[in-house]
Amino acid sequence: MGDEEKKKICIIVSKGTLDMAYPPLILASVAAALDWEAHIFFTFWGMDIITKKKVDKLKISAVGNPNIPMPNILAVLPGMDGMVTGMMKKTLNKVGFPPIRELIKECKENGVKFYACEPTMKAFGLSREDLLDEVDDIIGAATFLEMAADANVTLFI
Amino acid sequence: MGDEEKKKICIIVSKGTLDMAYPPLILASVAAALDWEAHIFFTFWGMDIITKKKVDKLKISAVGNPNIPMPNILAVLPGMDGMVTGMMKKTLNKVGFPPIRELIKECKENGVKFYACEPTMKAFGLSREDLLDEVDDIIGAATFLEMAADANVTLFI
Amino acid sequence: MGDEEKKKICIIVSKGTLDMAYPPLILASVAAALDWEAHIFFTFWGMDIITKKKVDKLKISAVGNPNIPMPNILAVLPGMDGMVTGMMKKTLNKVGFPPIRELIKECKENGVKFYACEPTMKAFGLSREDLLDEVDDIIGAATFLEMAADANVTLFI
Repeated sequence: MGDEEKKKICIIVSKGTLDMAYPPLILASVAAALDWEAHIFFTFWGMDIITKKKVDKLKISAVGNPNIPMPNILAVLPGMDGMVTGMMKKTLNKVGFPPIRELIKECKENGVKFYACEPTMKAFGLSREDLLDEVDDIIGAATFLEMAADANVTLFI
Repeated sequence: MGDEEKKKICIIVSKGTLDMAYPPLILASVAAALDWEAHIFFTFWGMDIITKKKVDKLKISAVGNPNIPMPNILAVLPGMDGMVTGMMKKTLNKVGFPPIRELIKECKENGVKFYACEPTMKAFGLSREDLLDEVDDIIGAATFLEMAADANVTLFI
Repeated sequence: MGDEEKKKICIIVSKGTLDMAYPPLILASVAAALDWEAHIFFTFWGMDIITKKKVDKLKISAVGNPNIPMPNILAVLPGMDGMVTGMMKKTLNKVGFPPIRELIKECKENGVKFYACEPTMKAFGLSREDLLDEVDDIIGAATFLEMAADANVTLFI
């Protein structure tokens, strides 16, 4: 059975919060474990997930998230994002979600491909050395679209 | 004409705000009314939409939403999320958008399938009884991906 | 080669912040430049992007965005969204991202089709004259789904 019969998922990751970092990495990792081709294109805020200095500091926002039961008037106080993020990390780890860096490793071991968005890198003043070694290539939207044209599942996160 | 010729939409719902609860339910309901297969996988914050104690209390955020013309310094005050949510509900109802619970019923009457994400349930400490009766099954990402592989439209909301 | 062999991208735009206005317009513009059919359906907050009085005033939120290194306690102060938006515009322009209005023109020159969501227009009290001339049609979700059924790439932004 040739590669052309493999299923394929192509995900664009535009968010860089901790809660929105999990879905693309989990979906891609699971897809790759099912022997699908899996490609993730990191752009805009999503770039933080593959940036060395940022990946371990991803946060969720305590403010403006009505699903977290904390009044905004408290949530804006200094340290609250950090506190809520810490609580979420504990909860996730307890039920078996690995930290983001481990999930990234898992993705790569399963064969997921990571791409950094070239124009976003320029906008954020990033060079190749700023990115995780796990990044396979730096590309533009055109290259990613051509990759996604025959995908079974395409998602924007 | 067999089932295999039916069109199919597969939606992942990761948000649990009132404004982001409408698009997936409307899209799935409309698709099912067009005789498509329609599947929704609720995960992360999206779980609130199918949780009995939460579904009637979904809110939009007054804070951090520049499309709502309210200064953040006011929007963080207690009660503001509720006020903005109330205004939005009135507006939506006036133009014919049903409340979320009715839209869920409409979805089910049209044949839309609802799935709860198993790891999210663990993380939130939820059991089957906490979920709406309308939920068809509790599954993981792998099962959903296999379902989505031959979908015409795949979306992450 | 007939139209039926053209690749196709169908995007639903539900957000109206400056940072989330770029991805759909860039992706559609690039796709159209690659000779794909490209269709954008503007709904919910996304409607602001094609509303005459709003398109030049799109903002990013300084609050509740942990990827922007500004404490929320400062970010809620009046004027902060404007300041952060101004900084982002400068950065984007410096690396070659055009202002949104120019990007819209570019999309149209490349053949991208723009659709306004009919129920959202009712909810927001908008009429055809309120929308940019670039909007091709006012349609509902059913029409858009039928358009998207044979698309190569479908995205919800």
